[in-house]
Amino acid sequence: MNRIEKVVEELKKKGMEQMVVTDPFAIDYLIGKFISPGERFLALYITATGEHKLFVNRLFTVPEEFGMEKIWFSDTENPIPMLAQFVMADKPLGVDKNMLAKFLLPLMEEAKASSYVNASICVDNVRACKEEEEKECMREATRINDAAMARFKDCIKEGMTEVELSSQFLDIYKELGADGFSFPPLVGFGPSAAIGHYEGGEARLKKGDCVLIDVGCIKNGYCSDMTRTFFVGEVSDRHREIYETVRKAQLAALAMIKPGVRFSDIDKTARDIITEAGYGPNFTHRLGHFIGREVHEYGDVSATNHELVKEGNTFSIEPGIYIEGDLGVRIEDLVIVTKDGVEILNSFPKELTIV
Amino acid sequence: MNRIEKVVEELKKKGMEQMVVTDPFAIDYLIGKFISPGERFLALYITATGEHKLFVNRLFTVPEEFGMEKIWFSDTENPIPMLAQFVMADKPLGVDKNMLAKFLLPLMEEAKASSYVNASICVDNVRACKEEEEKECMREATRINDAAMARFKDCIKEGMTEVELSSQFLDIYKELGADGFSFPPLVGFGPSAAIGHYEGGEARLKKGDCVLIDVGCIKNGYCSDMTRTFFVGEVSDRHREIYETVRKAQLAALAMIKPGVRFSDIDKTARDIITEAGYGPNFTHRLGHFIGREVHEYGDVSATNHELVKEGNTFSIEPGIYIEGDLGVRIEDLVIVTKDGVEILNSFPKELTIV
Repeated sequence: MNRIEKVVEELKKKGMEQMVVTDPFAIDYLIGKFISPGERFLALYITATGEHKLFVNRLFTVPEEFGMEKIWFSDTENPIPMLAQFVMADKPLGVDKNMLAKFLLPLMEEAKASSYVNASICVDNVRACKEEEEKECMREATRINDAAMARFKDCIKEGMTEVELSSQFLDIYKELGADGFSFPPLVGFGPSAAIGHYEGGEARLKKGDCVLIDVGCIKNGYCSDMTRTFFVGEVSDRHREIYETVRKAQLAALAMIKPGVRFSDIDKTARDIITEAGYGPNFTHRLGHFIGREVHEYGDVSATNHELVKEGNTFSIEPGIYIEGDLGVRIEDLVIVTKDGVEILNSFPKELTIV
Repeated sequence: MNRIEKVVEELKKKGMEQMVVTDPFAIDYLIGKFISPGERFLALYITATGEHKLFVNRLFTVPEEFGMEKIWFSDTENPIPMLAQFVMADKPLGVDKNMLAKFLLPLMEEAKASSYVNASICVDNVRACKEEEEKECMREATRINDAAMARFKDCIKEGMTEVELSSQFLDIYKELGADGFSFPPLVGFGPSAAIGHYEGGEARLKKGDCVLIDVGCIKNGYCSDMTRTFFVGEVSDRHREIYETVRKAQLAALAMIKPGVRFSDIDKTARDIITEAGYGPNFTHRLGHFIGREVHEYGDVSATNHELVKEGNTFSIEPGIYIEGDLGVRIEDLVIVTKDGVEILNSFPKELTIV
């Protein structure tokens, strides 16, 4: 069964016969061709009867041999009525979670579907179980990321700024064969490491500071993502206790991953360890996120995800403790769920390291 | 009047009193803070009464002094009902053109608005007239782009591949002080230059080929964008005729820009010249697009845009002729509309150049 057929099966399970996929990454996953439409319309209309259609602006290139009807339009044509005329009347239409209001609202005016439902889960459930070839891509991207982290660690010098450190990363990734970043590197020194999604500033690194590095690269279209936290010159007893608490939480979460376990239970295991150590309120985010073709894919390891872990799921395990004005510690690895356990992709050491 | 107040005025003109802005660039424009929410919710709720609210995940950083109420939520909370309770009942709600279906569909379920309308034009109309500070940013980004194009031209060597050429661009931009690309460079040699939105492959450059380079950088958050087409070693009479046709069309379009002219008439002027030369079907796209904080902003120079040019509008003029299997020629400059005419930002020469 090919990927689109799997999506059709998921739609049928929900009693649906048609869906519009608009996310460029989802379309790439389904047809094997990445098209970045910018502000233009791009859609894959999928039906249970197999009469799939790709709506694409003439500006973009799609190989002719693609086994699918293509509906071309130009910048002076409105593609929404073209799509609307194919939508089956009086039946629900699944739409992409990332479909834009500028396309969805007029489609709701023009088409005759009985309802409009966010049906991305039908694509996401298929994407969430990686195929062998995808797993190999994840391993390769992570191999590069592990090698890169060793180089990044060696770049750390007292007195440098966060931006001075992170500005060296892209060249190192390129030298190691990566195609680019999977996301802008997050680098925080000392108190800055406690700030969520912080991309670095002009603070200078000093003795006793932590250095949080959350980085990933893309290789062959797949993303790596890891975090390590180092200490500069020395580490206080309190910082060591915080670090070891995060490490213990991360290892405990990793140890319990296998098919059939609940994602919320994995989150709870890590969170309980951090809470028992007195830092519950300082672990301010979910434990992990799915990853693959995109650095954040649908699915997470969080208190609210009660789904069961499945073979092929690929996600991060990244507990953290953040103390405002002092430091942030996070340790993150990627995993692939195996038939009866878990493959931890990252091999870069996690023991407390003073640089 | 600040930017949000200007948006409120635009909303009132359309008989509306409330709007949800979700596009990160639009929010940045309105509040002066760029937040990249990834898959998470981020929204600015604007009301005619001035009780604006920013809905933002606790993971992100927003300065406390921001003169606006902030509604914080965490990864385990659903922000949609929080927003829905503020939406005024029985009144239309303007929504962002880029609002995602995964947020819009549940908002339509939960809120009590009388209708949901793509009201982005109310933001876009304000953004489309650049302020003095923004114009200076556009000039600076283009100054770098002009200097970079001179360097790119010097990198062109027979026998190289498109990727070998474009892989040198980022370092050159950085040396010249740019913050990065405004979009991935488009580089096409010979027949590849005829392919829309082509990012380069492994074809090798040979004598007589054209070299189309469509590039831009970001500086201080604002984008440049230009295209030049060079010839290698020699140029055939037909290629010269095509090049001169494109140049004539571009110059004619530039010459007529001033407040009060219709965008569709500017497009027609350039298109007529190309059509009269026999290449009408080979000019396959609109003449230009608006630009600023984003490389493509709302608004274009096309056959379907019958709006009038306004002072402060900033857009590209980029006619092209594409001959499948042979070559593509495009010449693109950015302009800012002045009180009674136009300021052409690019100064890089447009005379036919053989490298």
